[in-house]
Amino acid sequence: MLLETIKSPKDLAPLSTEELERLAGEIRDELIQTVSKNGGHLASNLGVVELTLALHRVFQAPKDKIIFDVGHQSYVHKMITGRYRDFKTLREYGGIAGFPKRSESEYDCFETGHASTAISAALGFARARDYQEADYQVVAVVGDGALTGGMSYEALNDAGQQQTQMMVVLNDNEMSIAPNVGALSSYLTKLRVSGGWQNAKKRVRHVGQWPLVGRPLYRMIHGGKNMMKSLVMKEWEVGFFEALGFQYFGPIDGHDITVLERTLQMARNYHGPCVIHVLTKKGYGYKQAERKPEAFHGTPPFYIETGGRIDLPKSPSCGHLAAITLAEMCAEDPRIVAVTAAMKLGTGMDHLAEEYPDRVIDVGIAEEHAATMCAGLAAGGMKPYFAVYASFFQRCYDQMIHDIAMQRLPVTFLLDRSGIGGEDGQTHHGLLDLAASLPVPGMTVLAPADAEELCEMIRWSRNYDRPCVIRYSKYLPHTRIGKAADPFAPGRWRCVAEGQDAVVLAVGSMVCQSLRAAELLRAAGISAQVYSCSSLKPMDSGVLDSLRPEIPVFTVEEHQIAGGFGAAVLVALAEKNRMVPVHCLGVGDGYITHGNHDRLLGDAGLQPEQIAARIVEALKETERQT
Amino acid sequence: MLLETIKSPKDLAPLSTEELERLAGEIRDELIQTVSKNGGHLASNLGVVELTLALHRVFQAPKDKIIFDVGHQSYVHKMITGRYRDFKTLREYGGIAGFPKRSESEYDCFETGHASTAISAALGFARARDYQEADYQVVAVVGDGALTGGMSYEALNDAGQQQTQMMVVLNDNEMSIAPNVGALSSYLTKLRVSGGWQNAKKRVRHVGQWPLVGRPLYRMIHGGKNMMKSLVMKEWEVGFFEALGFQYFGPIDGHDITVLERTLQMARNYHGPCVIHVLTKKGYGYKQAERKPEAFHGTPPFYIETGGRIDLPKSPSCGHLAAITLAEMCAEDPRIVAVTAAMKLGTGMDHLAEEYPDRVIDVGIAEEHAATMCAGLAAGGMKPYFAVYASFFQRCYDQMIHDIAMQRLPVTFLLDRSGIGGEDGQTHHGLLDLAASLPVPGMTVLAPADAEELCEMIRWSRNYDRPCVIRYSKYLPHTRIGKAADPFAPGRWRCVAEGQDAVVLAVGSMVCQSLRAAELLRAAGISAQVYSCSSLKPMDSGVLDSLRPEIPVFTVEEHQIAGGFGAAVLVALAEKNRMVPVHCLGVGDGYITHGNHDRLLGDAGLQPEQIAARIVEALKETERQT
Repeated sequence: MLLETIKSPKDLAPLSTEELERLAGEIRDELIQTVSKNGGHLASNLGVVELTLALHRVFQAPKDKIIFDVGHQSYVHKMITGRYRDFKTLREYGGIAGFPKRSESEYDCFETGHASTAISAALGFARARDYQEADYQVVAVVGDGALTGGMSYEALNDAGQQQTQMMVVLNDNEMSIAPNVGALSSYLTKLRVSGGWQNAKKRVRHVGQWPLVGRPLYRMIHGGKNMMKSLVMKEWEVGFFEALGFQYFGPIDGHDITVLERTLQMARNYHGPCVIHVLTKKGYGYKQAERKPEAFHGTPPFYIETGGRIDLPKSPSCGHLAAITLAEMCAEDPRIVAVTAAMKLGTGMDHLAEEYPDRVIDVGIAEEHAATMCAGLAAGGMKPYFAVYASFFQRCYDQMIHDIAMQRLPVTFLLDRSGIGGEDGQTHHGLLDLAASLPVPGMTVLAPADAEELCEMIRWSRNYDRPCVIRYSKYLPHTRIGKAADPFAPGRWRCVAEGQDAVVLAVGSMVCQSLRAAELLRAAGISAQVYSCSSLKPMDSGVLDSLRPEIPVFTVEEHQIAGGFGAAVLVALAEKNRMVPVHCLGVGDGYITHGNHDRLLGDAGLQPEQIAARIVEALKETERQT
Repeated sequence: MLLETIKSPKDLAPLSTEELERLAGEIRDELIQTVSKNGGHLASNLGVVELTLALHRVFQAPKDKIIFDVGHQSYVHKMITGRYRDFKTLREYGGIAGFPKRSESEYDCFETGHASTAISAALGFARARDYQEADYQVVAVVGDGALTGGMSYEALNDAGQQQTQMMVVLNDNEMSIAPNVGALSSYLTKLRVSGGWQNAKKRVRHVGQWPLVGRPLYRMIHGGKNMMKSLVMKEWEVGFFEALGFQYFGPIDGHDITVLERTLQMARNYHGPCVIHVLTKKGYGYKQAERKPEAFHGTPPFYIETGGRIDLPKSPSCGHLAAITLAEMCAEDPRIVAVTAAMKLGTGMDHLAEEYPDRVIDVGIAEEHAATMCAGLAAGGMKPYFAVYASFFQRCYDQMIHDIAMQRLPVTFLLDRSGIGGEDGQTHHGLLDLAASLPVPGMTVLAPADAEELCEMIRWSRNYDRPCVIRYSKYLPHTRIGKAADPFAPGRWRCVAEGQDAVVLAVGSMVCQSLRAAELLRAAGISAQVYSCSSLKPMDSGVLDSLRPEIPVFTVEEHQIAGGFGAAVLVALAEKNRMVPVHCLGVGDGYITHGNHDRLLGDAGLQPEQIAARIVEALKETERQT
């Protein structure tokens, strides 16, 4: 097997075209095998096999810096940079991460996870190189999806002025996660079909026969630097990148290693910023993924033969249920509209779109714009719901404050995937959303304890005329916690277990865990009062007033302790001049790695046994002191 | 005086061209008079006098929605929408705000303050209109500076696909606050000089003689919708906006009301998204401002005759001192580099650029890119300092977390204008930066008590290899607080006043205020121990351990209480199982308005007398209880 012999990119150098093609096949097999077992990002990696090989043959990493935007397409890169042997541990606890990690390899020069950062990082490297008078090359590999993010544009605009060597490889697969939206996407399609594409392959092959170093190529690139472009493009067509100061090359076939290498070699002699427009197919080489690239973007374990999921979900996701609720509301309320930033599927809003396609707006990977556009919708009399993962919510922090909260506009954030995520790791956990939203004046912050309460909150929010954040974990129980006849109300915490030795104030996913902890404690003769604190802001003033100095209080949340609910409880008690012993349980001051959710919850000390143990320990301490 | 007769935009309708020009002159006089007394944004408003008049003649606000990006150029709009009489109270406490305010007028349909939000908001309105089958028009007035912000691009990309009526008036004055940077700026300049500009005026005047409604115009715009464009532009030149799905009209003279009106009238019949490229001159009509538009962007009170500032600053600003310190470091350390997002002047980095022009990078209004580019610089071996206003720091919240903190890259944020700002009002206060930075794992957060300590911290940070935030108010005292021989060290709080009745943990600007409070208390027989807590994270564990239950503690900070330093102290004490009565002084859960800084500090209860009163009150309460 060829793949086993590739210990570093240097080992790619002697390979013939045929061998490279065989290697590509082996890599695809390995990708499919491992991801079918561990889950992960499949379609995007299948799409960049040849591109990654070509990049590592033309550039000399780690001296040259190759930065993968988002980074979920870095599996191939990992396999050929000394991590093939460990690749079977992909996304497992303690195993190879699903995204670039500087601690894993010197070939991972910059960590990514959220979209649209690579061009900025690349320009930083390029400028550092110029300051230091070093001579490495910098390459950002960016999907056409990530190009819809505003940061990419800010970086292009800056780099276009700087005019130092920097290459953007535009990996155009016509998808971000979902099929791409936005005018620029149509523009790229125009470039695709402009005729250049049909002829480019042939012509670049021809060009490739010229000596690849020395005068002729130099003249071709520099003397007539528009030659490559004019070979394939009409002048007006390259307006976008030219306007931003970038030299445009392409489009070229991203599955033809020879064409890729020759084009990259040419472009690496260009001394300014340039874009190489590479056409790839998501899922290339695995039929199930080619057919449904969206389903194989991030996939759970699956049967290779059929592409079917091994563990079919037993119940609809929280996002799905939220979408059903919104659909019910749409039926009677013309103001309801849902907004997503390229996450229709992940947030469950595809289920709303099935029934009400016009009521779901996908703005592309553009959370900043999404939030302010929601503010505009609300100011115009609509009732928008922005469904977004908690970790991507960080992208519209200022817009949440400046455009929504300050104007008290009735925009509701549906923060999916709050709390510890799992296999995607540190960039994808939602552990700072309360720190982001609780301190914002005028913001209402809610967290349902179960999926039913989530739907209840969404229904309630319909006639709420202020900004609101509803955060929920992927792992919420579906069955109703507590009494059915005890509906959600803002500013009220529901008592879901009675007790007198300790008070537990639990948030969202931690209500169920705390109830389990309370059961464990009961067996040990300790009775804990458990509140489901689904209204984080406003708080339940009555419950706060009922707390007594002799009974310890435990706040439990799947969130950083710093800036979280517990911290807010402490402030509220301090404002009331009340001295009550409060113990804050949550994630400590560090980053949670990737792995199984249960395992990671354990790392954070948030499993029922751990919660119970903390309570026992604190009660003992109190006894000792009295 | 004509201006007095304009009670609403309707009163503009009967005016002749001559009268409009007279009115424009009166408006300029009023702008210069008021801003010379109250301070404010002058140059940008002088530049949009004719444009604002034309917009309000062609569109029917408040039915039609006109949104001013950033909003500092909305003075003219305010004057002619019923607020002329109150205009003399501009930016005063209780007076007319310096930015659009929905509470002030129905003509202010959307509030702005930070750049690049208007196109998103406009698209929100346009979509709301379409859902409701209403028939108003939506116009976003966007400066070429704000166009460098990624949000603008995200919104253009989305609107270009939506293809509903929406007009972007590109107010191109070749400046954001400082002269514009970025490749797009060069591109706009190309459009300016492409010849179209010279002929446009004449040609549009000619076109204007056609009947402005009915068939011929309709045919001109729709039948041959490229006519206007082709009148003035070569095809390739419009590539940028066309790629984003926008119809481009222009460029036209932004100081010729007739040309403006006729072009706007034509464009308002275009049914898709379009850009009107309007050329204006910042400071137009006031020589001092035309000559130095940057100095008259946001200006303090000045002498109209000379343009000289009435109150010359007695000492260099904190930003200026930071720049001097960085310059000293540059002399010996080639890794030092400062980054600004179009705020070279405001952050004082112009003083570094004078000595080391190559060491200051201005990326344009692009905080997201700036932060991640800094991460790239740091990963490439440089030592970057990103100087940014605290309120704009909100724009790079995710980048701070995802690109800098998670990778533990040694980027230092110099957060200028932390705390309550002043006349610019709620969008410009820096009251959430601690809430944003303290909970982030691995982040060091500092706040100097005086300008000298700021410089000390910057010098210290040079060899600190982790991410760091240094926040400082505009109003820091220059003289050293406490003993000179007691240098800054992370994780250490300096005792700056001894006492035994109360402990004050003061942050940054509040150290000086707290010392004054302690003096007042001393007169009343109360002695307060005051600590300067310049290291917010890490905290001084020793001081925390020394706190006793019988002595009340007061945290004092110019920041929201929620998510602030006091909240972090409460969490730290809870983690130590220590029961100490803590009173958190800071800004409550609401937005601070605009006005004089001292007055606003008083509103927040942070004047020395108020701090002293809170301490007295709490001590009395403690006595009552014991």
